[in-house]
Amino acid sequence: MKLKTILITAASVAGLCSALPASAQFQKPEDAIKYRKAAFTLIGTHFSRIGAMAQGRTPFDGAAAAANAEIVADLAKLPFSAFVDGTSGTDKGTPKANVWTERAKFDEHAKAMQVEAGKLAVAAKANNLDTLKLAFGSTAKTCKSCHDSFRND
Amino acid sequence: MKLKTILITAASVAGLCSALPASAQFQKPEDAIKYRKAAFTLIGTHFSRIGAMAQGRTPFDGAAAAANAEIVADLAKLPFSAFVDGTSGTDKGTPKANVWTERAKFDEHAKAMQVEAGKLAVAAKANNLDTLKLAFGSTAKTCKSCHDSFRND
Repeated sequence: MKLKTILITAASVAGLCSALPASAQFQKPEDAIKYRKAAFTLIGTHFSRIGAMAQGRTPFDGAAAAANAEIVADLAKLPFSAFVDGTSGTDKGTPKANVWTERAKFDEHAKAMQVEAGKLAVAAKANNLDTLKLAFGSTAKTCKSCHDSFRND
Repeated sequence: MKLKTILITAASVAGLCSALPASAQFQKPEDAIKYRKAAFTLIGTHFSRIGAMAQGRTPFDGAAAAANAEIVADLAKLPFSAFVDGTSGTDKGTPKANVWTERAKFDEHAKAMQVEAGKLAVAAKANNLDTLKLAFGSTAKTCKSCHDSFRND
């Protein structure tokens, strides 16, 4: 195979993977909506268990904090592929249309959450409440910032 | 502190952790139900993407299979803590009462699924369709076996 052919083939294959629309992973828009709501339900559950410790509503348990933070960091990777075209809404809690019209900004917010969740998982391993509080706060800010911009009140 | 006191204290602390009912992690039974349904929604989504490859409905993509299997193995750890008391049902898809009356058997089924999902994650890394098919089949069997015994049709 000539170099040019190889390069074109490689580019096509790479393009096929990276350009495959997220919607192709879901049979129907409703499936994508159900999926992302499920992901946020799990993220919210585990993140709020850390929040309860950070805010003194439950006793600090370093091992539980670390386990919950690890789960949050893993789950943080999931929901954003499910913001497929045609799934904006106007009801409370649904994504506004600007998720799609300002997609680069939305993706930045998603990335920020994932990065802070990753840092939270590392911080939680320190088994120190003050360290946990700081990392929880930084992560919570990324949630709120995205909700303020892209989610219907 | 006398040895007996130390042992009793240690036993109490250990007991507190291991015997803490799963329900204590959820404010309300409805939260537990929502949580486990969310976990199974995500597991089902990613597992069925592997199934589509194993059954030839989508082209085999080793990297995608490995990524999906890794997610399934992680998620497999989540739903079972949410089978809290008082959350059986009679509607299609809800857990039968024997989840609670035969809890040890249910827990064995859960463990079997988690073990097979772990093996699937390892198998998927081999980047070989036949290996994937075998591990997918073994994992699917554990799903079906538990559903047959513990889920309302």
